[in-house]
Amino acid sequence: MTDIEIASTVKLKPITETAKKLGIDPEVIELYGKYKAKLPLDLIQPARMQGKHLILVSAISPTPAGEGKTTISIGLTEGLNRIGKKTTVVLREPSLGPVFGIKGGATGGGYSQVLPMEDINLHFTGDFNAIEKAHNLLAALIDNNIQSKTSSLGLDPRTVTWKRVMDMNDRSLRHIIVGLGGTSSGIPRETGFDITAASEIMAILCLSESFMDLKERLGNIFIGYTYDKRPLYARDLKAHGAMAALLKDAIKPNLVQTIEGNPAIIHGGPFANIAQGTNSVLATKMGLSLSDFVVTEAGFGFDLGAEKFFDIKCVKAGLNPSAVVLVATIRALKYHGGVKVENLKEENTAALRKGIENLEKHVENMKKFNICPIVALNKFVTDTDAEIQIVADKCKELGVPMEVAEVWAKGGEGAEKLAILAAKVAEQCVCKLKPLYEWSWDIEKKIETIAKEIYGAAAIDYTAQAKSDLKKIIALGLDKLPVCIAKTQKSLSDNPKLLGRPKDFVVTVRQIEIAAGAGFVIPITGEIMRMPGLPEKPAAENIDIDEQGHITGLF
Amino acid sequence: MTDIEIASTVKLKPITETAKKLGIDPEVIELYGKYKAKLPLDLIQPARMQGKHLILVSAISPTPAGEGKTTISIGLTEGLNRIGKKTTVVLREPSLGPVFGIKGGATGGGYSQVLPMEDINLHFTGDFNAIEKAHNLLAALIDNNIQSKTSSLGLDPRTVTWKRVMDMNDRSLRHIIVGLGGTSSGIPRETGFDITAASEIMAILCLSESFMDLKERLGNIFIGYTYDKRPLYARDLKAHGAMAALLKDAIKPNLVQTIEGNPAIIHGGPFANIAQGTNSVLATKMGLSLSDFVVTEAGFGFDLGAEKFFDIKCVKAGLNPSAVVLVATIRALKYHGGVKVENLKEENTAALRKGIENLEKHVENMKKFNICPIVALNKFVTDTDAEIQIVADKCKELGVPMEVAEVWAKGGEGAEKLAILAAKVAEQCVCKLKPLYEWSWDIEKKIETIAKEIYGAAAIDYTAQAKSDLKKIIALGLDKLPVCIAKTQKSLSDNPKLLGRPKDFVVTVRQIEIAAGAGFVIPITGEIMRMPGLPEKPAAENIDIDEQGHITGLF
Repeated sequence: MTDIEIASTVKLKPITETAKKLGIDPEVIELYGKYKAKLPLDLIQPARMQGKHLILVSAISPTPAGEGKTTISIGLTEGLNRIGKKTTVVLREPSLGPVFGIKGGATGGGYSQVLPMEDINLHFTGDFNAIEKAHNLLAALIDNNIQSKTSSLGLDPRTVTWKRVMDMNDRSLRHIIVGLGGTSSGIPRETGFDITAASEIMAILCLSESFMDLKERLGNIFIGYTYDKRPLYARDLKAHGAMAALLKDAIKPNLVQTIEGNPAIIHGGPFANIAQGTNSVLATKMGLSLSDFVVTEAGFGFDLGAEKFFDIKCVKAGLNPSAVVLVATIRALKYHGGVKVENLKEENTAALRKGIENLEKHVENMKKFNICPIVALNKFVTDTDAEIQIVADKCKELGVPMEVAEVWAKGGEGAEKLAILAAKVAEQCVCKLKPLYEWSWDIEKKIETIAKEIYGAAAIDYTAQAKSDLKKIIALGLDKLPVCIAKTQKSLSDNPKLLGRPKDFVVTVRQIEIAAGAGFVIPITGEIMRMPGLPEKPAAENIDIDEQGHITGLF
Repeated sequence: MTDIEIASTVKLKPITETAKKLGIDPEVIELYGKYKAKLPLDLIQPARMQGKHLILVSAISPTPAGEGKTTISIGLTEGLNRIGKKTTVVLREPSLGPVFGIKGGATGGGYSQVLPMEDINLHFTGDFNAIEKAHNLLAALIDNNIQSKTSSLGLDPRTVTWKRVMDMNDRSLRHIIVGLGGTSSGIPRETGFDITAASEIMAILCLSESFMDLKERLGNIFIGYTYDKRPLYARDLKAHGAMAALLKDAIKPNLVQTIEGNPAIIHGGPFANIAQGTNSVLATKMGLSLSDFVVTEAGFGFDLGAEKFFDIKCVKAGLNPSAVVLVATIRALKYHGGVKVENLKEENTAALRKGIENLEKHVENMKKFNICPIVALNKFVTDTDAEIQIVADKCKELGVPMEVAEVWAKGGEGAEKLAILAAKVAEQCVCKLKPLYEWSWDIEKKIETIAKEIYGAAAIDYTAQAKSDLKKIIALGLDKLPVCIAKTQKSLSDNPKLLGRPKDFVVTVRQIEIAAGAGFVIPITGEIMRMPGLPEKPAAENIDIDEQGHITGLF
């Protein structure tokens, strides 16, 4: 059965029931149909977050074989609820790009899903749209001001760094020229579109803690320079009020349910390879206000999502995870050991022993943050006992507790042992998160620390563009912001072809974007693009709808 | 008080109460918060539409002075309910373009508004977003196929007519080049963005009557030619299933309420100057299934919205209005008579007598459709008795019943007399709508008939581009489709500067776009643009939000 077929066999409870389970008066939530709701921000109460447990789920470097990080996050939540721990899973919202591209949905899989999956995977409650509109309103105001006769701020169009965004995999929009067609249709200039998940507004929404915080950050967005070299910000265009108004509902976290009827809060959707990669601070704090355990996920590998989770989100929001789960699969580790996708079903202990060095490096990285680590082996039917033993032995050698989970086929039942381990680790944890770097360090030192310590790089190379960006950042006084590195998720290095545990590589910083509103800078490494493309056979081709409005082919 | 201030004084009833008033079980509606809901399509029942009254509200040629067509539509609905007629107002959804540009919201004004106005004016229930995403998914699939090595359909990029859309006034996106940046980022080609209200998908959504109808129309969208000159359609890219899936909720009409607590159905939002300009067929039929009277609106002047309402929507959907209200204001008629905006407050009977020829022409046009006409004078406080008498005398001379309404300041109370008249006209009406042209006529004859009979043109001129488009349309066998003319709303002619009742003018057809899925062709006349720009002082600058999430400055 496909994910959507499994999902369609589940009898959903009204979301008002899920709210009641969390102790919320159903009158205060805003329904979006029967099975989705927005939660008012005043349910977040610092006093109620005391003594609660935040469990982060991360993973080894992703491969086409799949690791199932979302599936484990959901399955672990079911498992924790089964063993009597009141737990909410807090996740990011899916982007339409991957849904129509290659990856499919982002709502888990098999018997570990959040529902209604077709709604969550398509427009959900409109948050991505609101972010996109707020972003593109600023872009329209910028080009309108450049064109303006009476209200011009003197913005030099060649310096404008603010692009447009669209929630779509559309490579043809990466590099474009706008403003053609004569005097009535703007000033021609080079620009482009990023995917909405990479929007600075997405980052801002995920880091804001109130309407005023949101508005101030929106006003701080850097847009370019005047002809006489003065920096201009969104507030100079009086854009931030209208942008915040567009986000009035998007700022509120969304409540849905898991297959087993447990609460799921889904909010914000930055990608971890090109943005900070974790759900909103408000959603995490909402979860911690409403339940005893929160299971959350940081996108892609530990080197991307988890590093940003710790060094940006936790530092900013004062969060301290009491357990961190690193998800691995035998299949992915064999892929890191050089096995082709089509041969992953066969036992191959030699390749596994080689590929396991990817896991080893991520476990080493975990220890650098002074958190309480766990390895979760996401079991597939093709995994052999000998292979599982190799992973168990390696974890023992590394001194990290490990448990096998089987969540795709068995849901929460398959994660009970993992839940027992995670609850024990979290409840006994006395670790205090130690960020990898101080925000006050120089930009280059921050980049070097992440690249050498986490990625394992030998050196860092800056292009002329990146060096020039660096000077600009220092001149703007933004060099004390944290760094949110854009890097391929496929490798610990910035080269997607280097699997396993690459060594002696150089990380190339191609450019450094400013996200003054979000409060970080974005060093872009290697060939990573902030607007993906569609594959030769887009997943969109298989999606359909019948006379009754039922969707098929989604995932 | 501003509109949003007036709106904020109203104590809204839960939308479940509005549903009950229409005889709908509140369990079957899908709530979007407490005050908005989507209505399931099975509430539309042809048997229940029998003997119901459809009242269309149209207007004279719009001016900066305002005519208040939406305000009259809402006020008339309140008035009809006050005199005991069970009435629903059925309207289009606002576009963000005008909200942030110059016009402000599109939810009525003063004491004749639909609520919650800030929600309806911003993202509402996400329909515009869904349309935009479906549109841009097809665009991404087109450029992906052009780039494709293994799945190429041989599409000649120079022939692609499908652009992208964004719900924003953004003139810099009208004419763009995409696909720059080298081999990995697409094939460079010229294209552009239209505003979402002008999307063929918007037209399709507004004309579809079921999921299957929707999907078939989406598949019929023409996208361009292969290098060997074969036409290609969206179905050739297998795009229509995923596009329809994106529209699974957008196809359902939205229920809200008026200030006086009467039902309002708001669905679909094409502009009448660049698209067909009326709400969805499903919304109209929903209204007729649920109440005895439906008041609906066709955008801009009678020459644009009403002509398309009759010749496209009514013919397609088998609708027959039993009364047609033409809205005029003394201010607008004086503007047509040459008075500057700043002087409109002063009595000026000479200018009024001159400008009233605009009203005269629209009344003449009404009679060509064999419908039962009414003139509604939307009264402003500055109107003098002498001026009102001139309009009354002119209507008497033209043989059309006329009534004064004062809906902005008084709501339904100010429209009671108009309601009594409209109800009487509708109930006594035995007219059978006579379309202006037969769909089977040649494209040129259809254009000529509208331009000469309705606009009052002396002749039609076709550019070389338009002539070439015409040949293409004939070769594709699409020449028996109706015509949806894009023309400035500011004049009966295609020149926005010609006010009043222009004569001896030539209409220039610049190009003819194909909307094979919607089922019409779009002759574009004069300088009209399908992507508006922002003004020197965008309305966005005044919009703000406070700590509690309350919006100000929206209209």
